[in-house]
Amino acid sequence: MASSDLDMSIDEERNQLLMREKMMQLGGHLVLKEDEELANTKLMALKKAELMQAMETQNFPPSMHFFQAKSLIEKSEVFKILKKMPKGAALHLHDFGILSMDWLVKNATYRPHCHFCFTPRGALQFKFAHPTPPTPAPAECSEWILLEKYRKGLQNVTEFDNSLLRNFTLVTENPDVAYADQNVIWSKFEAIFFTISGLVHYAPVFRDYVFRSLEEFYEDNVQYVELRAMLFPVYELNGTLHDRAWSVRTYKEVASVFAKKHPGFIGIKIIYSDHRFKNASLIMESVRTALELRAMFPRTVAGFDLVGHEDTGYSLYDYKEALMIPFSRGVKLPYFFHAGETDWQGTSIDRNLLDALLLNSTRIGHGFALTKHPAVWAASWKKDIPIEVCPISNQVLKLVSDLRNHPAAVLMAMGYPMVISSDDPAIFGAKGLSYDFYEAFMGIGGLTADLRTLKQLAMNSIKYSVLGQREKTAAMASWEERWDKFVVDVARGPQ
Amino acid sequence: MASSDLDMSIDEERNQLLMREKMMQLGGHLVLKEDEELANTKLMALKKAELMQAMETQNFPPSMHFFQAKSLIEKSEVFKILKKMPKGAALHLHDFGILSMDWLVKNATYRPHCHFCFTPRGALQFKFAHPTPPTPAPAECSEWILLEKYRKGLQNVTEFDNSLLRNFTLVTENPDVAYADQNVIWSKFEAIFFTISGLVHYAPVFRDYVFRSLEEFYEDNVQYVELRAMLFPVYELNGTLHDRAWSVRTYKEVASVFAKKHPGFIGIKIIYSDHRFKNASLIMESVRTALELRAMFPRTVAGFDLVGHEDTGYSLYDYKEALMIPFSRGVKLPYFFHAGETDWQGTSIDRNLLDALLLNSTRIGHGFALTKHPAVWAASWKKDIPIEVCPISNQVLKLVSDLRNHPAAVLMAMGYPMVISSDDPAIFGAKGLSYDFYEAFMGIGGLTADLRTLKQLAMNSIKYSVLGQREKTAAMASWEERWDKFVVDVARGPQ
Repeated sequence: MASSDLDMSIDEERNQLLMREKMMQLGGHLVLKEDEELANTKLMALKKAELMQAMETQNFPPSMHFFQAKSLIEKSEVFKILKKMPKGAALHLHDFGILSMDWLVKNATYRPHCHFCFTPRGALQFKFAHPTPPTPAPAECSEWILLEKYRKGLQNVTEFDNSLLRNFTLVTENPDVAYADQNVIWSKFEAIFFTISGLVHYAPVFRDYVFRSLEEFYEDNVQYVELRAMLFPVYELNGTLHDRAWSVRTYKEVASVFAKKHPGFIGIKIIYSDHRFKNASLIMESVRTALELRAMFPRTVAGFDLVGHEDTGYSLYDYKEALMIPFSRGVKLPYFFHAGETDWQGTSIDRNLLDALLLNSTRIGHGFALTKHPAVWAASWKKDIPIEVCPISNQVLKLVSDLRNHPAAVLMAMGYPMVISSDDPAIFGAKGLSYDFYEAFMGIGGLTADLRTLKQLAMNSIKYSVLGQREKTAAMASWEERWDKFVVDVARGPQ
Repeated sequence: MASSDLDMSIDEERNQLLMREKMMQLGGHLVLKEDEELANTKLMALKKAELMQAMETQNFPPSMHFFQAKSLIEKSEVFKILKKMPKGAALHLHDFGILSMDWLVKNATYRPHCHFCFTPRGALQFKFAHPTPPTPAPAECSEWILLEKYRKGLQNVTEFDNSLLRNFTLVTENPDVAYADQNVIWSKFEAIFFTISGLVHYAPVFRDYVFRSLEEFYEDNVQYVELRAMLFPVYELNGTLHDRAWSVRTYKEVASVFAKKHPGFIGIKIIYSDHRFKNASLIMESVRTALELRAMFPRTVAGFDLVGHEDTGYSLYDYKEALMIPFSRGVKLPYFFHAGETDWQGTSIDRNLLDALLLNSTRIGHGFALTKHPAVWAASWKKDIPIEVCPISNQVLKLVSDLRNHPAAVLMAMGYPMVISSDDPAIFGAKGLSYDFYEAFMGIGGLTADLRTLKQLAMNSIKYSVLGQREKTAAMASWEERWDKFVVDVARGPQ
């Protein structure tokens, strides 16, 4: 063979390989319309320029810790496009980690009758009550201080409010120093939920929190959310406690009011969630509760999950008996298990992925360890079980530092079903879904991911939601309308 | 179905999944002999204890930077076993990064007629000569200082020697601060080779360096090495320069002398390597040189490779014409390309993996990005092209920080052909192969990898070497004899 023939044949094989990989990747088989092609060209030119600059400067946001990358991301032209992009649904969120903590500080803590105290370990607690409640036992908390009065005595209220804010998020200048290991950061993470608990479970705040959350996601072009909620009792000023049904009903009502004012908003569904540190008999109760709630609110309560630090909690296998109750009763309780949110391959915890599959989980939360489990990976792919990828959460909670090494990169390159979500954006100093989409698009997808990938991710979020078939069709139509506008906007925009 | 039936069926499916994954992983289908089973039980008990302790303390060497992990690794019982383990061959090493730098300081620089100077940028250079050579041009180096005389004038020679050592390795207390990004560390990395060049290319040192290197690997239970060598001119005291053929002949001779004194030592082969920063016409010359060298030393010169920082160098595609010379001439020149030693997915550099495959690379150096290229991955698996995994190198050169996130974890779980090597252990403060085996076994393999994995890795190093069929059979027999002894030693040992 002459050299030029060889040349040609290598180039041909090369193009075939490139094409095969292009087709395999997430969204690779989507055929773009004319406007989409134009928008894609513009988007990819911006993306390439940003990546090439990052290779030069070695300042690449997905390789940096999010706390340090955030301001850089906000300067990115790609990020600006991602913010405008209709992203469909957010399927992996936790009840009180989703609304910018600013709101809690500036709004909730400024309401009348807000008290605070310090636990012996220095943690803040809040309570709305009138009159001021009696001092708790010393082992629990200091005396209750009325915030309104306390603020009046302060010389610098802004400084105090900033200190509150610092207590409500994980954000810090030097996260690698502040959070030496996963246990340290998980304990601060859980402490935040404990601290804000008295604020967000106060009925008037609760209602507004839900409404404002939906607004924040809606502003970020998210039309629908599925929320892991623990449904702790919500209280009134006079101490009255509401049960879980009340909370679900309130979620429903708020979402319905919200929908009326916000065209294109689709709604909210609740995944009732319990903590994976409880013993098996308590989880048995929770499964029964989940079944009851689902019977009461079949269109709002989507199913059940277990939350908390996987590495230190019970495994799904430990809860096997409880989790099989629905099967043995012949009733349906969809599961949405967190599984494989770990780096400890081969441990009992790491086997949660196996059990999530065997227990027929509808989706898998994180699934960070999935690529290390080839048999589970193959089986869950066959069953079309998507993973919910939360890049910033995984980075902040110290599973991976450079997001280019996130295992979802492999899955995205192969076209494994996934959605992008943000877990607890407010606690990480993020907002909505856009920051996580940026990390996924630039870091996890590399230069290979393009508008097809983004479109597939958005469509996946509706496809793999638990919306009914009819709701899904309507949601997809509504999303598509927005998508088409977005595409025209990018295609005809400057640059 | 009754609950207990369901129970059983889930447990059965679970065991099947576990078994399937166990069979898939690297070495998973190996059937252990009785002594091996016993040794495996002991090894895995130690491994599990160390992993469980690490989960408690959150101090896990593979998650830490090697410079900080090294002393912890040395305390590990698993590491002690890995040191004793016959590891077969080291297939990915670079000429002058393989012998503990201590030797260069304590031996080479103490020889008579050793001079040093400082370049304007503060880099050290060395030259053996008699009499002292004339002062170089100021743009090149300061005047030559005779080390012997210089040391005599020092109050604290140890301190000076330590400063030399610091110039010869990348080791530093706080690597994340010292090496802010990949470009910074690569430039220090290349600077080390530049600095030691005048030492290692002095003929008497060169010979001893090769001999001592083989000894260091032999002591680490490595029986055979394949060396990427740039074959720069070696010089004599009087300034005479030797050509590449001289160097290859010397490698051969030293290895043959070494073999006589060290039972079980198999030998050395050379992969002639050039730098990926040269323009294409120079690489064309190098390919011709490689062909010539291979014609002269068919049993010693194994093939050709390109070295240097992939991200900033030319791509294989840029060199296509040069690299196709052997094909167009119808002669064979095995390639051992570094490819995919990058985190920049989708860039032209990242496509080196495609071209390594298309150019029929015998093995792939690093292949760090392979899992992001599903089509290349499938094709190279079909062609049985192994990757040479160098965990510590990848971590030190900032491709991945926590080695549990090394992409080889996915490949190991799937049984993709691979070998473990150490790249430039001396520059990273490591030695032989044992440290990299530790990282691979504990970090990349997780709790799943066992004695089967280790055995397969050792066997792979012979299987995927370029030894001839006969040599391979002999090497395998010699390795097996050592392996059996090792197994008995572990099986009957304490614990």
